[in-house]
Amino acid sequence: MVGASLSGSFATMVAQSLKAAGFPAVYPVNPKYTEILGLVCYPSVRAIPGVVDHVVVSIPAESALALLDDCAAKGVKSVHFFTAGFSESGDTERAELEKAMLSKARSGGFRIIGPNCIGLFVPGSRLVNATGVPLEPGPIAFISQSGGHAQNLPLYSAQRGLRFSKVVSYGNALDVDESELLEYFSKDPETEIIAAYIEGVKDGQRFRKALQEATARKPVVVYKGGTTEAGQRAAHGHTASLTSSVDVFNALCRQLGTIQVDDAEELIDVLVALRFARPLPTGTGVAVVGAGGGPSVLASDEMEKARLHLPQLSPEVQAELKQYLPLAGSIFSNPLDTPNLASPEAISVAMRVLGKVPDIDMLIYHLGFHPISRWGGGRFSSPAFLQPAVAALMQVRQATGKPVLMVLNPALDLNEMKDFLAAQEAFVAAGLPVFHSLRQVAKAMARVVAWSQM
Amino acid sequence: MVGASLSGSFATMVAQSLKAAGFPAVYPVNPKYTEILGLVCYPSVRAIPGVVDHVVVSIPAESALALLDDCAAKGVKSVHFFTAGFSESGDTERAELEKAMLSKARSGGFRIIGPNCIGLFVPGSRLVNATGVPLEPGPIAFISQSGGHAQNLPLYSAQRGLRFSKVVSYGNALDVDESELLEYFSKDPETEIIAAYIEGVKDGQRFRKALQEATARKPVVVYKGGTTEAGQRAAHGHTASLTSSVDVFNALCRQLGTIQVDDAEELIDVLVALRFARPLPTGTGVAVVGAGGGPSVLASDEMEKARLHLPQLSPEVQAELKQYLPLAGSIFSNPLDTPNLASPEAISVAMRVLGKVPDIDMLIYHLGFHPISRWGGGRFSSPAFLQPAVAALMQVRQATGKPVLMVLNPALDLNEMKDFLAAQEAFVAAGLPVFHSLRQVAKAMARVVAWSQM
Repeated sequence: MVGASLSGSFATMVAQSLKAAGFPAVYPVNPKYTEILGLVCYPSVRAIPGVVDHVVVSIPAESALALLDDCAAKGVKSVHFFTAGFSESGDTERAELEKAMLSKARSGGFRIIGPNCIGLFVPGSRLVNATGVPLEPGPIAFISQSGGHAQNLPLYSAQRGLRFSKVVSYGNALDVDESELLEYFSKDPETEIIAAYIEGVKDGQRFRKALQEATARKPVVVYKGGTTEAGQRAAHGHTASLTSSVDVFNALCRQLGTIQVDDAEELIDVLVALRFARPLPTGTGVAVVGAGGGPSVLASDEMEKARLHLPQLSPEVQAELKQYLPLAGSIFSNPLDTPNLASPEAISVAMRVLGKVPDIDMLIYHLGFHPISRWGGGRFSSPAFLQPAVAALMQVRQATGKPVLMVLNPALDLNEMKDFLAAQEAFVAAGLPVFHSLRQVAKAMARVVAWSQM
Repeated sequence: MVGASLSGSFATMVAQSLKAAGFPAVYPVNPKYTEILGLVCYPSVRAIPGVVDHVVVSIPAESALALLDDCAAKGVKSVHFFTAGFSESGDTERAELEKAMLSKARSGGFRIIGPNCIGLFVPGSRLVNATGVPLEPGPIAFISQSGGHAQNLPLYSAQRGLRFSKVVSYGNALDVDESELLEYFSKDPETEIIAAYIEGVKDGQRFRKALQEATARKPVVVYKGGTTEAGQRAAHGHTASLTSSVDVFNALCRQLGTIQVDDAEELIDVLVALRFARPLPTGTGVAVVGAGGGPSVLASDEMEKARLHLPQLSPEVQAELKQYLPLAGSIFSNPLDTPNLASPEAISVAMRVLGKVPDIDMLIYHLGFHPISRWGGGRFSSPAFLQPAVAALMQVRQATGKPVLMVLNPALDLNEMKDFLAAQEAFVAAGLPVFHSLRQVAKAMARVVAWSQM
């Protein structure tokens, strides 16, 4: 039920991805061909025999109006323009062309996504715009003014366990814009968390109202692109966005209880925290368990810089830990530094002792500076260790009622990377939140706690 | 010429690494064995037949004094204690024990490295303390109060092209400390750049003088561990460091022209910049060439947040670029966004045009959000593309006399990671500085420019 008007490689890639994902009906459209990718190719949208709901457009901007007439005649519901070169080009005629397109949509009774974007990814409907993304649906909606971010978030967060209800790349926001998308997703029963990459806001009043409604119902995480003067210039060239004051935008987000992040990596971290830190912590007290003096210094600095705090351990708690952990090589403070980390029993007992401390709100388990394969002579990344380790951490969460957060360092070597991915997969499969550095876990958890306290 | 007093697994690992590295003479010492790793094992240091220069110690703290008597009798020059559990334990008796060890060293005419550290890595002498590190020497010295950082810096920066003259992990700094090491390396002819991880300073006056001498001769990059209250507590537990005020330390570093960094990753980035950004830029003007609207917005925000600036392009420069790059899909501003990135000719011509602009001091080439294997349908990571691309960038550097900086995104997928590593290897082999994100290149270059302007 997608008509792909093919002239560029993007449309071919989308048609290919839709076919691979098992989307029920894809109709290539291109007057120059009779067959594309083994599918019958039609000369126009009107010539397609079946019902057409959605059209993916990758043709030169000059042909846009004629195509829209065709879409209106066919009775389509939505048209997504990958095509760029409209108002964002700075050309007045092209901005006028956009207005004419909007009129066609209104009179034709259909909606426009974009132009200048990569459109829709709806895993539940197998409506995809890239290969390699998981088709299993999940509770996160992502609206993105950038096609790159829209494509990357589901791709690069998949291994961390994130899955999406719908991802909408909306580019120049000619018709469907950020406010309407927020309104939609705040009511969408398939969406529990809303993430957004926004360069500019089209209608400030409507946006405020939509954001207020959304944050009242669901956590909303916003990454604002174009927070500097140069960034705003680039955003204007990218999606014709005219950002009003960044300070006003930030104040609005703060006031309405939005979680703001500084980049795409942090967006993933906060979504992982919201999704898998169970229960969500409501205080800033953190206990860090790991190995190595340098890493403990780093952990302390990172936690405190992020405005989390490390409660000091009472002599009673220290004495209890000394019953279970080796005196040689351990430092019985917070961070707790022990060489016994590769023992699931030691992990479990130490973290349960720490979890009983009232002002400790969350428990972080890290592996120091090392990739996982360097632990315990490689033992750590074997299933024989990973399974009991996962079980131990789940038990800690269960017994203490406090979230357990895992830090695993990605490696830059292929063998160690393989071990890292296997370990991450085991922890993620159990529903544990995995972060890739002490800084990332500190920043993400600090943002989530600040939000939960609003 | 190393006597390893073996009781822990660390000493065995060191002996193994020394053997693998081809170190001329390793003598295991342990009264319980007659052979270790296929080497004759001696009951004591004194029993070793040959000359012993350096002893690596991994025995319980309680036996330290007896061992040092043995070392004095044998006439060794230096003793490295991996053994921990001295003053950093907070125990008064153990602090006294350290003092007695220092007396033994003075009377015995040898020096102590540590205790509580991983000691020396001198690639030129094949004196190693870990496996997997490059044995090729280079111009960087690293002094580190943390064994973890000392081990990791050469390991994790190897792929980026960094090589070391000497790495010294000095732990509790009982005898050899940060000031003496700075004095040594500022005069060491094999060292052109000094890097340091410091938790605490033992003698403020001596440190100031040593740092002043060092910065007058060579770039000095300092990562201070324990910059927060919790971090200082952890540093005290780690290496018994009593940091004086962090503000005083920072002011001293600034005043003496030190480059300060916030973490180990940034330390690598700054070292890569100092080593391979040729010539070093002296101004903050940067031109960014890459693909994608979202990445251009991100690049702008990151550059400006780091206090670099993106000079706007004159109509003349824009007109010149339009002669060479496709109008469709390109944005002719700074950042320059063009879909033609996978063409070495396009890279070369565009960057040479930008390099002629007087207030552009450096040129960044990035691949947007994508791992390299997603570019040009995989073409980009093939040798057929990589070789001309490397040549094109070298030509740009040559023709413009301005540094060319490369941003490659590591992937989290094994296949894409393989392509990433191959591409990185090609650029690094040509002597180009490779960074792993736009933020990292921005922060590192901003620090280097600020330092060059001091």
